[in-house]
Amino acid sequence: MADVVHLRKEDAGGLVLKEQAGAVLRLTLNNPPANVLSIALMDALSAALDAAAADDTVRVVVLASTGSLFSAGHDLKEMTAHRTDADGGRGFFEKTVRMCADLMLKIAGLPQPVIAEIDGLATAAGCQIVATADLAICTDTSTFCTPGVNIGLFCSTPMVAVTRAAHPKQAMEMLLTGETIDASTAKDFGLVNRIVPKQYLRQVVDKYSAVIASKSPEALRIGKAAYRAQAGLPLPEAYDKAVSVMVDNMLRDDAKEGIGAFLGKRMPEWKGD
Amino acid sequence: MADVVHLRKEDAGGLVLKEQAGAVLRLTLNNPPANVLSIALMDALSAALDAAAADDTVRVVVLASTGSLFSAGHDLKEMTAHRTDADGGRGFFEKTVRMCADLMLKIAGLPQPVIAEIDGLATAAGCQIVATADLAICTDTSTFCTPGVNIGLFCSTPMVAVTRAAHPKQAMEMLLTGETIDASTAKDFGLVNRIVPKQYLRQVVDKYSAVIASKSPEALRIGKAAYRAQAGLPLPEAYDKAVSVMVDNMLRDDAKEGIGAFLGKRMPEWKGD
Amino acid sequence: MADVVHLRKEDAGGLVLKEQAGAVLRLTLNNPPANVLSIALMDALSAALDAAAADDTVRVVVLASTGSLFSAGHDLKEMTAHRTDADGGRGFFEKTVRMCADLMLKIAGLPQPVIAEIDGLATAAGCQIVATADLAICTDTSTFCTPGVNIGLFCSTPMVAVTRAAHPKQAMEMLLTGETIDASTAKDFGLVNRIVPKQYLRQVVDKYSAVIASKSPEALRIGKAAYRAQAGLPLPEAYDKAVSVMVDNMLRDDAKEGIGAFLGKRMPEWKGD
Repeated sequence: MADVVHLRKEDAGGLVLKEQAGAVLRLTLNNPPANVLSIALMDALSAALDAAAADDTVRVVVLASTGSLFSAGHDLKEMTAHRTDADGGRGFFEKTVRMCADLMLKIAGLPQPVIAEIDGLATAAGCQIVATADLAICTDTSTFCTPGVNIGLFCSTPMVAVTRAAHPKQAMEMLLTGETIDASTAKDFGLVNRIVPKQYLRQVVDKYSAVIASKSPEALRIGKAAYRAQAGLPLPEAYDKAVSVMVDNMLRDDAKEGIGAFLGKRMPEWKGD
Repeated sequence: MADVVHLRKEDAGGLVLKEQAGAVLRLTLNNPPANVLSIALMDALSAALDAAAADDTVRVVVLASTGSLFSAGHDLKEMTAHRTDADGGRGFFEKTVRMCADLMLKIAGLPQPVIAEIDGLATAAGCQIVATADLAICTDTSTFCTPGVNIGLFCSTPMVAVTRAAHPKQAMEMLLTGETIDASTAKDFGLVNRIVPKQYLRQVVDKYSAVIASKSPEALRIGKAAYRAQAGLPLPEAYDKAVSVMVDNMLRDDAKEGIGAFLGKRMPEWKGD
Repeated sequence: MADVVHLRKEDAGGLVLKEQAGAVLRLTLNNPPANVLSIALMDALSAALDAAAADDTVRVVVLASTGSLFSAGHDLKEMTAHRTDADGGRGFFEKTVRMCADLMLKIAGLPQPVIAEIDGLATAAGCQIVATADLAICTDTSTFCTPGVNIGLFCSTPMVAVTRAAHPKQAMEMLLTGETIDASTAKDFGLVNRIVPKQYLRQVVDKYSAVIASKSPEALRIGKAAYRAQAGLPLPEAYDKAVSVMVDNMLRDDAKEGIGAFLGKRMPEWKGD
């Protein structure tokens, strides 16, 4: 996986930069200065995720950002401009909030693992992306908050993700006070997996990506889908789902190859390699 | 919020002391020596919470205790006295345990955020109050336990709260051994948010209360209700709930004011201010 | 509990060693070198657990292992040998995976508390046993992983246990990377309760076992069953279950004795003592 299999760079001036190196697709939010989730950005990110989902050459997706702010969440200017709509903005707000929730569900349900790479402040729906990603790696100067209470708009949708990533009291402290936590607290809370000095961020994310991309893509897809399918179910039902997934997985080519390689003390070669 | 808007002190000799400073209502358990949750105390606390729920001037509720014991849980003497009832106590036990569970549901469902302020031992249903409150701040000498196993009465109802605040193994260690954990362990477990030296307890709780009370009361009520509504739901259903809440919130006066103030770089003025 | 009430040692040469000292039943996986969960081992462990469940003299079950590897999970050689079956192995894989899930459900549902005692590597279904046990105590050199992705077989069934023990991102890091975590990380994740130097492992496990075995066996059974019954339910339903359990518990002999002893400042004597 050290070699770059192919490299694409599209939409260099777009709201979401796409760059693929080998099996790792890097999607970079590029909506300075705060990478707010405007309709246009969410459209672009959603389309990029749909394309990734359908692309067998993509085994890992990294979500990163340009600039010093990971993402400040919704585009409040865009939303406010629609207050003068005939319906007072309801239609546009519904479109925006639904689109944002669907984006999070798309990240959570993406066949491939998603790593959030954070350098800077991740706030509101920006923090929700971090909480939603399968893994999150941040710089030691990154910070996180759900500050909706400060503007009279409680972070109810970010709450869905944050309360599933962290303990309730930890999530509620963020949500009720709107205060900003540092990277170390975010790691304690379970919001991020790893904290690295800024100069090593990309290197560590690349390492994680390469490790994951070296695994059977089939097994990764099966596993991530299984996680979603069993999450929150009572224990017996969760096992019913997982048993059926595991048996099916065992009968696939990559499990046959992988177990054969393991028993034969050789490196496996995956179907998608 | 630094100014005291109004101050009420009621029932100074009662089982629950009520003191309101500005938007912060302080309810203090006052049933020495162990602040046990007798029927009379639960009645008083439940009534105080009902009154708070209906009182728009209350934006934050603090639950504190007199003395060196936060609360030792059920009043075992009161319960034991009813063993000689015609039904062996069943009716009274049902009343007590149901009342206690309803009290916890009332704290969890209170429209306003609830902060537990702990200085001393919180045990059984006392520990359950801590686990149930939205936030908990304790002194560094506070301790916590669910010691029902020591008296043949497993802490099954406290377990409901403790297993939702902490990881299962951490909760089970408390429940199966009955042993007492220190403040630092309680913070690791997610049972408390902050540990402070005794002389600063009130100051830190006041700071948290003031921070939360400075937010839009409307947004806080919307958010706390939304937390309850989506807790434990599968991800798509949780988002359905939260999206609908968020759109409704966006159309309220305080969100309009708050977002306008944010974009205009001025301080917001909430409807309830 | 310091005295050995009776001591049984069965199947010394078997796949699961059974040793009972007082109320503590010790089941030791004995399938060197990796204590893999072959059909024969799972059969033996399942039978031992069934016997324990029905045995009133057993108050605590310890799950330990011989050798330097706690357990490497499924027996891949045994499974691979069935690829030549007429059905390509499907029947045997279904039997194996279902049996393993049922074993985990049996540990989780065992009337008595289960303590996993780990010294060495716990991987895949071996790590799942650790995550499933009520408590886990390990040496400081123990390590943990769910490395199915390395062999094309995602750890979907271990995931059920690991994602319920730890925060989602922590579990996903183990599952997606397949990497091995140390004891300290496992404790941070909530996978283990306590880390001890190797020379004290048995002593600490014995202390925990003795503490738990000294409690009312009735209360322990009631409590563990109540944990299962309310896990994952919405808060009001969870309290409905727990209230009913608590009232019933209050009317049992051991609660009467335990509360009486507590109020009378004497040691309780449990029905089963």
